[in-house]
Amino acid sequence: MNKWICDNNILIVGLGLMGGSYAKALKRLGYSVCAIDKNEESIKYAEENSIIDKGYSYVDTQAVQNADVLIFALYPNDFLSWIKQYSHLFKKGAIITDVTGVKECIVYDIQRELKNNEFIAAHPMAGREVYGVQNADDKIFIGANFIVTPTESNSQEAIEWCKGLGKILGFSRISVLSPKEHDEMIGFLSQLTHCIAVALMTCSDNEHLVDYTGDSFRDLTRIARINDKMWGELFLLNKEVLIKEMDIFISEFESLRDMLYKNNIEGLREKMRLSTKRRAYFDK
Amino acid sequence: MNKWICDNNILIVGLGLMGGSYAKALKRLGYSVCAIDKNEESIKYAEENSIIDKGYSYVDTQAVQNADVLIFALYPNDFLSWIKQYSHLFKKGAIITDVTGVKECIVYDIQRELKNNEFIAAHPMAGREVYGVQNADDKIFIGANFIVTPTESNSQEAIEWCKGLGKILGFSRISVLSPKEHDEMIGFLSQLTHCIAVALMTCSDNEHLVDYTGDSFRDLTRIARINDKMWGELFLLNKEVLIKEMDIFISEFESLRDMLYKNNIEGLREKMRLSTKRRAYFDK
Repeated sequence: MNKWICDNNILIVGLGLMGGSYAKALKRLGYSVCAIDKNEESIKYAEENSIIDKGYSYVDTQAVQNADVLIFALYPNDFLSWIKQYSHLFKKGAIITDVTGVKECIVYDIQRELKNNEFIAAHPMAGREVYGVQNADDKIFIGANFIVTPTESNSQEAIEWCKGLGKILGFSRISVLSPKEHDEMIGFLSQLTHCIAVALMTCSDNEHLVDYTGDSFRDLTRIARINDKMWGELFLLNKEVLIKEMDIFISEFESLRDMLYKNNIEGLREKMRLSTKRRAYFDK
Repeated sequence: MNKWICDNNILIVGLGLMGGSYAKALKRLGYSVCAIDKNEESIKYAEENSIIDKGYSYVDTQAVQNADVLIFALYPNDFLSWIKQYSHLFKKGAIITDVTGVKECIVYDIQRELKNNEFIAAHPMAGREVYGVQNADDKIFIGANFIVTPTESNSQEAIEWCKGLGKILGFSRISVLSPKEHDEMIGFLSQLTHCIAVALMTCSDNEHLVDYTGDSFRDLTRIARINDKMWGELFLLNKEVLIKEMDIFISEFESLRDMLYKNNIEGLREKMRLSTKRRAYFDK
């Protein structure tokens, strides 16, 4: 770590599951961690459980001005509004990072807004199907991937700092992608998979099937428990990529269907062998 | 348990992952367990590791004639051929059961073949992504579902016996479905989910994505490691049901895609709320 994480005050804006998990990890490491969240209950819970040192359910000018590092864990549109409204309060040289799940539509806009501060974007690929600081858990970072998504206007120093942040939080693999590469990757790996899980859960009235199910259905639908406000926003902000990925998937799925329809079992088995081979790469 | 599981000799035909796991559980419970499998290695391994008492890599007449209980863990078509060729050897009154993953296309045919024996079909909803008796593990039954699929020609006594078998093997939930109901259920819960996982894995060359993936992609593709011979056969034998389920899924997935395309985020969020509500039923 370097100048930004040594003598610093960390401010987390948005104290939900992810903001809370960052707070837990950073407090454990000995940093001074403050937080802003409009939900008074969340702030109270986090203070009482020593997840943060001090919290505010309003934008406390002093807290913002004191921060050396600001970590944003808001929904994408709220993040941009917040920056527009309050970034003039930032201490000169304070560094900004985030946890936002889409990048291209937001990173450049935010960098344009900031005059005296550098914003280095990141996406921690970790989560849970439950929400709120009450479920915050810094163990979700262990074994997970952390992606830094710099633009041309980021300094090498900020990129290294952000990679270091991922490391001290406990992530196992730290990567660097451009915002565009990130969004393409996330459209396939995360957004498409969530669409599939939702469709599988909503395509028929299947509640009575719980008595018979094996683990395959459970695994495929774990992420069908979904925060509709957040994911609705993420899908729309990455719409072009996601539509493309959905179309590719539909076309592949239909070709399997047609093979079965035409009794082309050798074709189907060939697909299964390919999927088996490819899946081996993803074994932990 | 009743007359069939008290003084009996159990013969398992087909000593792969599932046959081997049955053998382990039944040996642990103190039964005398023999096995037939054409693979000599499997028999040798099972004998050396005390998974069975005695095994044969050929159809040993004496072993078949001695059996009070025969458990078939073969692929569906092999199962039917075996019965046609050797069922005249069965001891009068010996009871037959199986682990086959499809039912309607096989149960009636087998019952028609048997003159002096009752066949009560069952489907243990448990498995692993690895194969062979070397990976047999009777812990996979714990917490899993066991489904008995009788026809009109089964006796109540045999149905109860089979439910009892599921219970002593360690299954948590024992259900009874008709062969038709079973196949409809399995078409949705198991076969459709496997098709989805395969299509997700084969729809694009994604091996390089392993550095970035979170758990959602891993969960959705766990079952993309698939035994192509077995699943090819299962899909074809339940083709009509599976095609119907695939079409329903495609239609639902396309409607999500169109909502996104038309910026109908409220429609998408409504689907997400429904999927979240339904998924709650499947929490363990």
